[in-house]
Amino acid sequence: MKVEKSSKGLEVLVRTQEDDLEGFSFLEIMDRVDPLPLDFENYKNFKEGIYYMCTHDGTKIGFVLKFAINEMETVCSEIFEETFQLDESRHELRFKSEDFDHRNNLIDQLARKMYLESSLSGVKGWRNEKYAVWVNKKPYVLVERAVAGVLGIITYGIHINGYVLDPKSKKVQFWVPRRSKTKQTWPLMLDNIIAGGLGYPYGIYETVLKESMEEANLEKSVIEDNIKATGSVSYLYFTGDISVTKFNKESDFIVGEVQYVYDLKLSEDIIPKPNDGEVESFNLFSLQETINALRKKEFKPNCALVMVDFLIRHGYITPENEPNYLELVTRMHRRLPFPTLN
Amino acid sequence: MKVEKSSKGLEVLVRTQEDDLEGFSFLEIMDRVDPLPLDFENYKNFKEGIYYMCTHDGTKIGFVLKFAINEMETVCSEIFEETFQLDESRHELRFKSEDFDHRNNLIDQLARKMYLESSLSGVKGWRNEKYAVWVNKKPYVLVERAVAGVLGIITYGIHINGYVLDPKSKKVQFWVPRRSKTKQTWPLMLDNIIAGGLGYPYGIYETVLKESMEEANLEKSVIEDNIKATGSVSYLYFTGDISVTKFNKESDFIVGEVQYVYDLKLSEDIIPKPNDGEVESFNLFSLQETINALRKKEFKPNCALVMVDFLIRHGYITPENEPNYLELVTRMHRRLPFPTLN
Repeated sequence: MKVEKSSKGLEVLVRTQEDDLEGFSFLEIMDRVDPLPLDFENYKNFKEGIYYMCTHDGTKIGFVLKFAINEMETVCSEIFEETFQLDESRHELRFKSEDFDHRNNLIDQLARKMYLESSLSGVKGWRNEKYAVWVNKKPYVLVERAVAGVLGIITYGIHINGYVLDPKSKKVQFWVPRRSKTKQTWPLMLDNIIAGGLGYPYGIYETVLKESMEEANLEKSVIEDNIKATGSVSYLYFTGDISVTKFNKESDFIVGEVQYVYDLKLSEDIIPKPNDGEVESFNLFSLQETINALRKKEFKPNCALVMVDFLIRHGYITPENEPNYLELVTRMHRRLPFPTLN
Repeated sequence: MKVEKSSKGLEVLVRTQEDDLEGFSFLEIMDRVDPLPLDFENYKNFKEGIYYMCTHDGTKIGFVLKFAINEMETVCSEIFEETFQLDESRHELRFKSEDFDHRNNLIDQLARKMYLESSLSGVKGWRNEKYAVWVNKKPYVLVERAVAGVLGIITYGIHINGYVLDPKSKKVQFWVPRRSKTKQTWPLMLDNIIAGGLGYPYGIYETVLKESMEEANLEKSVIEDNIKATGSVSYLYFTGDISVTKFNKESDFIVGEVQYVYDLKLSEDIIPKPNDGEVESFNLFSLQETINALRKKEFKPNCALVMVDFLIRHGYITPENEPNYLELVTRMHRRLPFPTLN
């Protein structure tokens, strides 16, 4: 995809001959986040390897791997049995307690034990941040972020695209941070200007303000002047191949994710700065540099998807230059098979 | 929902006490377009009343009512039998011919016969415009627009939101046409500034330019200066209640629809004008007037949805003022259960 100037002097993305020859589609970026077909629950491997996490009264709230259940049973059998009822025939792992505080207490114990004694690498990244599972628009249980993957619950976050639009040339540039090399996840990859998980009890916009300060050193007044809520993307994050994945390791987790998406249009004199050590540097990328980085897989996968969402909403990706336009728009708004926050 | 000024002087939508008391949600507007639950195909009435339109090699391409099949068999039994194979046990209506031109020819004859002799009111609105059914990204059969509902195929269109943003006050106004009282469908209701079906063989952007001239007297150069592709909405248009609808009349049709959505940001000196008699008048609506008209059901339902899409993408509807934000965003990008154009 090549950036050219339209007859009106606007930047437009044009498919090259190579794009057509190799059949390029931005769907590639979607596939790196969520390659699951609609009927993924009918696959043999899925049926064997995946259980449904359920509330005490039977509402499904997540996908939990048999592998993860085995790990919990090995590492913390006592707390596990106090917390959950395992139904092998229905492939369900149900919470036992009807009480919110009791569930929180048990899951907290379970998470701490896993952190200390499990060999899973994910649980070692203790965040001291709680994710809420939402059922009937209320928090059903609070889960330490590090064990969200093990329990297979839906997680929520905010992602902000920061951009500068030159009023004269109409050229767009994106503020693209490179993640710190010491980040637990995806070190050194490119990111959205600001992104963060929705830690309980922070609200969505509250998280926007909090993360803007923490990650980019941008104050509340700068954000309030320039930010716009613009929708959401949702997907089942999965990196395997449903036909062959054995669901017997951490990287086989299927995690429902919702990202609330914001645009932050900044003037050239506002410069984001690393603040909390999570970001190595912020750089301004031209449209062409951004497209190239997307195609070279330099972005963290879900940040790439949020960038694609921006490119669609702002008319850079169009039904004319993207052969799977509707498919792409539909898939990035996947309906998750469990209750959600809103 | 009340429009107020933020501390930064920007227009924001604020929920009123009445909104909370009556539980208002923009999901109401979604429900007027597509109230079908995810599992609608499992309902008894649906199973009895609906057949699947299929290609000659068995790909499902639409929902066709048994009622509509009966009507075609009554009105034009000979052409009907030449065109279709009816499988009562599988509830499938299959095209017989493997040849594109032959299918087109038969459907054309069938449509003309229906136009002349059927008592269905929809088919009386002959448009002399062909809709293509897309399978494997190629047109599978061309169908006169007036019988698209009878055959239950997916239809495509373009919808443009025209707006004026005052650079100083930051107030937004929308160009809202009122449909002519002689329009076959939805007379006198409010519309998007420009909207039109994707008639074969026009491309999507080509249709944007064509309709802009035809409907609003806006020339190509004005459109090219100011337009932006911004995504799509997709839904199964249905006005009944799946639990009780008998699927025995025209208004019970279920029609998959895709609308490619565009923003057209106009300066105050550009005035759209009715051109082809389809529009009675264009008026500038303030944000509050637009919200009020949406809630009073003054917009044609799918135009209301396209307006809601604008309000989401531009940060007026937010996760803070809309209790079903994610549900709304997800549902307006419904995956249609048949192959689509792109």
